[in-house]
Amino acid sequence: MAKKRKTTTAETAESMAKRQREISVSEFFLKNRHLLGFDSPRKALLTTVKEAVDNSLDACEEAGILPEISVDLRQISEKRFRVSITDNGPGVVRAQIPKIFAKLLYGSKFHRLKMSRGQQGIGISAAGMYGQLTTGQSTRIDSKTKGQKHAHRIAVQIDTKANKPVILADDEEEWRPTFYPNGKVKPVTYTHGTCVTIEMEAAYIRGRLSVDEYLKQCAIVNPHLQLHYRVNLAKNGKADEADTSQPADEPWQTFERAVRVLPEPSGEIKPHPHGVELGLLVQMLKDTHARTLKSALTQDFSRVSDRAAQQICAQAGLNPRANPTRIAHQESESLFRAINEIKLLRPPTDCLSPISEEQIMAGLKKEIQADFYTAVTRPPTVYRGNPFQVEVGLAYAKPGENKDLGAEEPIRVMRFANRVPLLYMGGGCAITRAVGQVNWKAYGLTQPRGSLPVGPMVIMAHMASVWVPFTSESKEAVAHYPEIIRELTFALQECGRRLSVYLNRRKRAAEAERKRSYIELYIPHLALGLKDIMDLSNREEQKIVTKLRKMLEKTHLDV
Amino acid sequence: MAKKRKTTTAETAESMAKRQREISVSEFFLKNRHLLGFDSPRKALLTTVKEAVDNSLDACEEAGILPEISVDLRQISEKRFRVSITDNGPGVVRAQIPKIFAKLLYGSKFHRLKMSRGQQGIGISAAGMYGQLTTGQSTRIDSKTKGQKHAHRIAVQIDTKANKPVILADDEEEWRPTFYPNGKVKPVTYTHGTCVTIEMEAAYIRGRLSVDEYLKQCAIVNPHLQLHYRVNLAKNGKADEADTSQPADEPWQTFERAVRVLPEPSGEIKPHPHGVELGLLVQMLKDTHARTLKSALTQDFSRVSDRAAQQICAQAGLNPRANPTRIAHQESESLFRAINEIKLLRPPTDCLSPISEEQIMAGLKKEIQADFYTAVTRPPTVYRGNPFQVEVGLAYAKPGENKDLGAEEPIRVMRFANRVPLLYMGGGCAITRAVGQVNWKAYGLTQPRGSLPVGPMVIMAHMASVWVPFTSESKEAVAHYPEIIRELTFALQECGRRLSVYLNRRKRAAEAERKRSYIELYIPHLALGLKDIMDLSNREEQKIVTKLRKMLEKTHLDV
Repeated sequence: MAKKRKTTTAETAESMAKRQREISVSEFFLKNRHLLGFDSPRKALLTTVKEAVDNSLDACEEAGILPEISVDLRQISEKRFRVSITDNGPGVVRAQIPKIFAKLLYGSKFHRLKMSRGQQGIGISAAGMYGQLTTGQSTRIDSKTKGQKHAHRIAVQIDTKANKPVILADDEEEWRPTFYPNGKVKPVTYTHGTCVTIEMEAAYIRGRLSVDEYLKQCAIVNPHLQLHYRVNLAKNGKADEADTSQPADEPWQTFERAVRVLPEPSGEIKPHPHGVELGLLVQMLKDTHARTLKSALTQDFSRVSDRAAQQICAQAGLNPRANPTRIAHQESESLFRAINEIKLLRPPTDCLSPISEEQIMAGLKKEIQADFYTAVTRPPTVYRGNPFQVEVGLAYAKPGENKDLGAEEPIRVMRFANRVPLLYMGGGCAITRAVGQVNWKAYGLTQPRGSLPVGPMVIMAHMASVWVPFTSESKEAVAHYPEIIRELTFALQECGRRLSVYLNRRKRAAEAERKRSYIELYIPHLALGLKDIMDLSNREEQKIVTKLRKMLEKTHLDV
Repeated sequence: MAKKRKTTTAETAESMAKRQREISVSEFFLKNRHLLGFDSPRKALLTTVKEAVDNSLDACEEAGILPEISVDLRQISEKRFRVSITDNGPGVVRAQIPKIFAKLLYGSKFHRLKMSRGQQGIGISAAGMYGQLTTGQSTRIDSKTKGQKHAHRIAVQIDTKANKPVILADDEEEWRPTFYPNGKVKPVTYTHGTCVTIEMEAAYIRGRLSVDEYLKQCAIVNPHLQLHYRVNLAKNGKADEADTSQPADEPWQTFERAVRVLPEPSGEIKPHPHGVELGLLVQMLKDTHARTLKSALTQDFSRVSDRAAQQICAQAGLNPRANPTRIAHQESESLFRAINEIKLLRPPTDCLSPISEEQIMAGLKKEIQADFYTAVTRPPTVYRGNPFQVEVGLAYAKPGENKDLGAEEPIRVMRFANRVPLLYMGGGCAITRAVGQVNWKAYGLTQPRGSLPVGPMVIMAHMASVWVPFTSESKEAVAHYPEIIRELTFALQECGRRLSVYLNRRKRAAEAERKRSYIELYIPHLALGLKDIMDLSNREEQKIVTKLRKMLEKTHLDV
């Protein structure tokens, strides 16, 4: 049946076997670097800043420190930038630095359920790997923890074949990141913190997909952040390499923090039994430190009381004092079924820290010049066992009054996940999908079928979760889980209803205005007519005009 | 400056360090299973079939075997399916089976530049991992290589913490996959090959995103494939678990192969120096088996002749007999610059095996009832050093004549990469983007701004490459590399020009028809007028009508 090709290179099972090999995760992402947000020099710059700032914010918040972050971009040759991000965070202990900055899939945030910006343990190492790939240079980390006298200065690269850090330099240094923010005489000095410096092929742009835009949005949703930013572009697009030791001459731009309190700290939770799949249940029973099935259920999961654990065991026909490991191997399926038949409280949702309607309104008002603002924070809910919460803000400008918002243009959608602005991949995001699926015609906007509505409007949507499902490792778009789209839809519809009240009122006001001016037009003619009929004097005519005008002003003309 | 929160849980650098851990690649993808195409039970079914069929086709083609594949879906309970894919390929040697089917990032296709369907070494293991997660069951593999007497039957699971296979059963078995395709008395027996069986939570649907659609499109672009397919749904949506040992009763549906020759085998190539980044160059120099810089350049790269290697060394000021490892550490940057300054032949492109215009036309004609067909295969070109080639086919139906293609609906786009149909994530794909960016109004279609054009039309686009850049590990959409979008645009525009010739001709014909019927309408009146003027008899009048009609028929009325 099989027919040989003419070629002599036909393989056999044996010859194929010789070529089978392990692929290191670094090799994989090096070849697929677009998955991590490094497809182009422009995007690489944004992704690097984003990963570093996200890490800094997370570290500061976990340590209870009000974050102050400096982002320093310096063009050092036509296609190269040196990117340096410094924070006043808790610092990183010496032993962890190489792995955190030069090993993919390493970190503290993956193995827990807690709302944070980072979650994968890939981002900052990927930025360093990209720098290494495009320039051959190492990632440099300066870090000083609170107790230490000196900072560590470590230079690392990734051994991509093994996905392991290679340390190229390891020194103790003075730690003195000092900034003279624009117009301030007093310098800002960080007493502890971390500074990461990466040299990379990059390109600087302005506009909707730029570092500038990212940082601006970042400041909006993180009002507790003090942010300094500076871009030094080379003159004539060509920097003199020798020139880089000179102090940079561009002034710092500072986004001042608006509040001096940190967001409510978000707690870590345990998995909810109803969100756990059979295979994961087996794994958890195998790994548990508990000695009995009952204690495994109550200790390792959220919302399982002693009574609920008893009920589950009874339902499954299992002994509550059974060895969890044995159950994992033999009776996991009946346990799984029982768990899903017993009613349990929904997962705890105090693990989420939403931005809040108030702060969304404040952010929109600060950034978007508009006539109508509203915001909705939905109550928390759950997808695949993971608590999440959705927030939507809306700003509508009077047509023609905000030159950035064309009345004939599709509306603008600003997307956020765990307080991180998402700029790229809008087309593939659950947020954009949800906005497009809402019937905005019902609220008074025009909308091409299945597309974004048209009008001078901005929508800002935030998804907060202990685990945000992104469509790729570059974390630019939220995956299309139906539960998430549903929550977004509810929030959007509520905003839409409020918008339609506003638009109707405006329409009625315009209508009344039209009528009023129409009547006003005829007042002199009316007075003239009355003058003729009743033979009035000019003064009396004038009196009638004035009186009619006053009446008109007092009357509320409703449509 | 830092302000403590009220909470007592504030972290320090030291407490954070304790929680830093390695994340195994299996754990990562288990938690992010939507990245691999396992976000929902429906999609899980499609992804599993796709990964298995892709592997079978690749193996058959590499071994020079005309592929014959059977896809057997069996619902075994309300939410569970048993998925079984059998091929007549070369089989897999015993030692490799566990790793190939139960370890992520393991395979033969990643570390080479060759056009193939699989490239990552993730897909089939991910399907098994999903099955394990949702049902606790193992992946079962039966495989027999050509020389062996018996087949191996191996059951494996993934230890997700270590990303390693765990073997649960390992037996020798009779190998007798025998099928009685629908209506055929003679059974089909495979004398060697591989059968993979996975039990998983899944849901069967019909329509544009179904397994049916995937297999149909697969048969179109792989006319050398003989494909058997069977779906056994449980009665009343609920199967009796005990019933699964019964022989399945649904008949097989067979997609007969249209040709008995394999596609031209595609060759493996070496990286082209101009596509290699600095970091990769360093790595290659470190890893080379060559003893001198010159031989490293000529042996490890494509298109570097002895003369070109000499030129590169001269340009970089390096000794051609230098030790490549030393260069890697010290002078890689000048070498890198020199390489990019020397002119080289473009990468070889005989490594690609396009579908061909002829076969695209045949496929479209077989599947899409339309009035006009055309196809364009572009010459091969390069992105990031990787050769690729783009093909586009177009079918246009007369409005109203194909009920699947509404004249007022957006056109349908069928996407393929290395002969694999892409069904999901159309919105995020470079192919869809390219179609939406072409100005179809110029070719006579209507098109909302920035969207797909509207009309009774199908576009089929294929990207063939030694490395297809996908937007996620689930390989559903092509990433937006500008070089790829440009090639697609050229091919689409050429098809568009041909379409506009057809549409103009049709428009002219319709116009002529309109004029003709208009004149025809007046012939009797004309004859009557002539009769009056010239005083003709009724018979003469009738003769004039007949003659005028004949004249009209002969005349070619052009606009």
